[in-house]
Amino acid sequence: MNFISLIQTKRDGGRLTDDEIQWLIAEYSADRIPEYQMSSMLMAVFLVGLDPNELAAWTDAMLHSGEILDFSHVEAPKIDKHSTGGVGDKVSIPLVPIVATCGVAVPMISGRGLGHTGGTLDKLETIPGFRTALDPPEFSKILERHGMVMAGQSETLVPADRRIYALRDVSGTVPSIPLISSSIMSKKLAEGLDGLVLDVKVGSGAFMKDLDQARQLAATMVGIGRTHGTTVTALITNMSQPLGREVGNASEIRESIEVLHGGGPPDLIELTFRLGAEMLVLGGVAPDLAAGRAQMEAAVASGEAFEKFKQVVAAQDGDPSVVDDPGLLPLARNEQTITANRSGVVIAADALDIGVGAARLGAGRETKVDVIDPAVGTTVTARIGDEVEAGAVLATLRYNDDANLADAIRLTERAFVIGDGPAEMAPLVYEEVR
Amino acid sequence: MNFISLIQTKRDGGRLTDDEIQWLIAEYSADRIPEYQMSSMLMAVFLVGLDPNELAAWTDAMLHSGEILDFSHVEAPKIDKHSTGGVGDKVSIPLVPIVATCGVAVPMISGRGLGHTGGTLDKLETIPGFRTALDPPEFSKILERHGMVMAGQSETLVPADRRIYALRDVSGTVPSIPLISSSIMSKKLAEGLDGLVLDVKVGSGAFMKDLDQARQLAATMVGIGRTHGTTVTALITNMSQPLGREVGNASEIRESIEVLHGGGPPDLIELTFRLGAEMLVLGGVAPDLAAGRAQMEAAVASGEAFEKFKQVVAAQDGDPSVVDDPGLLPLARNEQTITANRSGVVIAADALDIGVGAARLGAGRETKVDVIDPAVGTTVTARIGDEVEAGAVLATLRYNDDANLADAIRLTERAFVIGDGPAEMAPLVYEEVR
Repeated sequence: MNFISLIQTKRDGGRLTDDEIQWLIAEYSADRIPEYQMSSMLMAVFLVGLDPNELAAWTDAMLHSGEILDFSHVEAPKIDKHSTGGVGDKVSIPLVPIVATCGVAVPMISGRGLGHTGGTLDKLETIPGFRTALDPPEFSKILERHGMVMAGQSETLVPADRRIYALRDVSGTVPSIPLISSSIMSKKLAEGLDGLVLDVKVGSGAFMKDLDQARQLAATMVGIGRTHGTTVTALITNMSQPLGREVGNASEIRESIEVLHGGGPPDLIELTFRLGAEMLVLGGVAPDLAAGRAQMEAAVASGEAFEKFKQVVAAQDGDPSVVDDPGLLPLARNEQTITANRSGVVIAADALDIGVGAARLGAGRETKVDVIDPAVGTTVTARIGDEVEAGAVLATLRYNDDANLADAIRLTERAFVIGDGPAEMAPLVYEEVR
Repeated sequence: MNFISLIQTKRDGGRLTDDEIQWLIAEYSADRIPEYQMSSMLMAVFLVGLDPNELAAWTDAMLHSGEILDFSHVEAPKIDKHSTGGVGDKVSIPLVPIVATCGVAVPMISGRGLGHTGGTLDKLETIPGFRTALDPPEFSKILERHGMVMAGQSETLVPADRRIYALRDVSGTVPSIPLISSSIMSKKLAEGLDGLVLDVKVGSGAFMKDLDQARQLAATMVGIGRTHGTTVTALITNMSQPLGREVGNASEIRESIEVLHGGGPPDLIELTFRLGAEMLVLGGVAPDLAAGRAQMEAAVASGEAFEKFKQVVAAQDGDPSVVDDPGLLPLARNEQTITANRSGVVIAADALDIGVGAARLGAGRETKVDVIDPAVGTTVTARIGDEVEAGAVLATLRYNDDANLADAIRLTERAFVIGDGPAEMAPLVYEEVR
């Protein structure tokens, strides 16, 4: 086969065969295709697309570029949840211990934050000692013992995705529905799951800016799951304002622990329970969503979900005393409040601006090599629809280094729009795709 | 500026500013942009296009990546001709001495053949000693003395095009109208011309397969010329069958010399005179096409055009005795005729198949590093519309090495379609774009 002729086929709107796709992913993974040819192909895919057959073959080829995990020795149904990423999205942290307590096993492989979006691994690593780099036997042992494990992607899992993702990042080919879908789904399918719940975020703080795009992405991933015999449910959820109150790494762990204690902000609680109930139903552990939700509430009320989290923190070498006393987690030395410039109703609390603002304080990375500061971030007090008085605190920036403070203030101020109201209230969950 | 954001702009259908285009061409030329980013940009340009302003800026940036020639010391009007390439297209070789005799100066910079298309440099180099690599002072001196010069592109002329062309070749981004146009026009504008006549070929043996594409390419190049203040006329001409009888390097020199002696096949004579008359009119040497044609006929009849060619061959260190006796040019040892399998009318003599067939014999290159055999090629006896008897010779393959002979026979046989007629007779010149 000749790679240039495959580029020409895709460029001219043609269909690549299964064999051609398998060959091109294998050759690229084996370093036999130069980067400049693959980036040209990725741009052609970006602009021309992949049809469902091509996408299934592409995902399959990525999936088989490395090891596929096998947890058949774990009796519980293996169900994972994946979010397409947003601002303040710490759902996985309370969710996984709750559903694991209810009887589904969650072999969760997470990522790091990039740009304005946070990453579960960065948050977990603010717990002193917590290790997210687990070798396959450790990963499997913790899953088996605790019914859950939360770690980073090992070198052997879907290596083709790691290479292709790195190239997309530097060749302007990131926000492509087939490329995003195959990247997410190849990694999740490699976890050897029985089912997967997707949280496809839409809004300023998400990769998908409008509902149609989000629907398309959700349907595409559900379709890939179907082709591979893995049941996938997707919820399309709102990311026009941050999820919960905290945007920042240690502060999001604190807020997650609140949820495990039965507290926390309403939107975070709601989304955690909605997604979790879907997982319990998918795993056959609950007969319906209402029953699943009741099981989750019981797991929180009994303190078992909190205990589960503490045990897993200890199992992954984290210090469990910070789970008991989240005040021990790092907190920035300085704070700066953002206040309302008039009385009225909060019309917007833009997730992107708040997320970028927090990233400028050090809560996020602009490039992969940047180092995050676990202690910094933004506490968002005002939510869309709130009535506020002039001078009321809308948000609090927490920082150690004031190098980019002015920028963060400007962005966070810009995020808030106060008007005469009423505000347009978008639902937290737009719709389900099954 | 950030190259990835420029890729994103183009990818999403946005417009690049003049400054952005200048920057990107300059940075790429200076090796500060990795190949994988440029190939992604080229694919985005391929699929999204460039608007006329972007195209003017792109061409201008390429043009200014190197030296711009200045022949203001040459008094005669400087007019060049460029063909988009075809099979058997040796027009430049008789054309340039004829028009130079008539009083326009032609500083012609030509290319080499690739794939099924021949290259003027390869043909000229079959004349023993003929040098196509001239340094700028030599080039200028020969032009000044003889009113013509025919050489290859020097290292200093439009280096950005050389790099971008090489990358397009291996990234599946060759047949793009804006990329082709900017490549051709930046090189031609760097010759410091007063006017340019383009021969935009259309048909199976051309890059442009249909008339609409050819029209678009012609109009695009004429538009670039206008923006740069250089008058450009384009003729859209037929390349569904080879031009003239000979396809092969030395054999095309022999056929060109026939034209300089007032002979040669009718289509080659016609196209040479049509294009030349346009050049004389553009240069202000002839008041109209008819007068230009008469001047050219006189230049041939008097023997002056032939003498001019012989002088330039000598000036470029070629052996002028082969111009006097073309029988001294290399000729392949073996021949194989292709004959009609039935009586009837020639419906097709496909230029692409004949061109690829001749290339397989060694007349062309499949990759840039292949070496051509000057002696081999195909003589095409039958033309579309000819009546032939079963068994009549349609073409003769001339070869030294029979390694790919079977392939060449198969392709050449396939090129000819004989039917009951009448054949559809396409015009030699479809239209003019001014």
